[in-house]
Amino acid sequence: MYKISMLLDFYGQMLTKRQYEILDLHYNGDYSLGEIAQELDISRQGVYDNIKRGKAALFDMENKLGLVSRFNRQKERTSEIIKLLEAIDVSALGAQNRKSIEKVRLELRSIMED
Amino acid sequence: MYKISMLLDFYGQMLTKRQYEILDLHYNGDYSLGEIAQELDISRQGVYDNIKRGKAALFDMENKLGLVSRFNRQKERTSEIIKLLEAIDVSALGAQNRKSIEKVRLELRSIMED
Repeated sequence: MYKISMLLDFYGQMLTKRQYEILDLHYNGDYSLGEIAQELDISRQGVYDNIKRGKAALFDMENKLGLVSRFNRQKERTSEIIKLLEAIDVSALGAQNRKSIEKVRLELRSIMED
Repeated sequence: MYKISMLLDFYGQMLTKRQYEILDLHYNGDYSLGEIAQELDISRQGVYDNIKRGKAALFDMENKLGLVSRFNRQKERTSEIIKLLEAIDVSALGAQNRKSIEKVRLELRSIMED
């Protein structure tokens, strides 16, 4: 079960503009359904329907493509690798090699946030 | 511009079964259009149309979602990190720490093939 905001990040561009706009306001912007209805000048029921259909489309894509799960698996593995690197005792290494290991660690962290 | 087989791997499940089957035979199985027509007992024109529409759908998804490009970027960065790791002179390290660095390297390679 993935957070809607992550599914939106991956698959949002396959939704209708209206669905994306409403899901983005609700799940990333923390707007209530009532607030979105007011903001977009549509009915609360319209907001609800768009959220329901948009969510179903996002879950359907993840069920079919599994790309969020694939990304998450890679992140977990990268996180394990960072732990491995941090467990290495680098005190016997020269400054240059210590710096390289530190750089590897920082690069891996940065990949994880990409 | 990505290889069709990579787009198929990522987005293939969003195609119709027939489109997927035909693109898979052509781009992964190296079947010609004529061979596919014979194999599936449909017209060569039908094969051609399915390839044309299927490819368009794949490119459309990559244009919208960019997930193949996102994965490829991460792979390139991981490949750079592996190079960094390989440049480290580990001769001053104890066996245990050398083993850890080797393990990190292998894990990263394995992530790249995932």
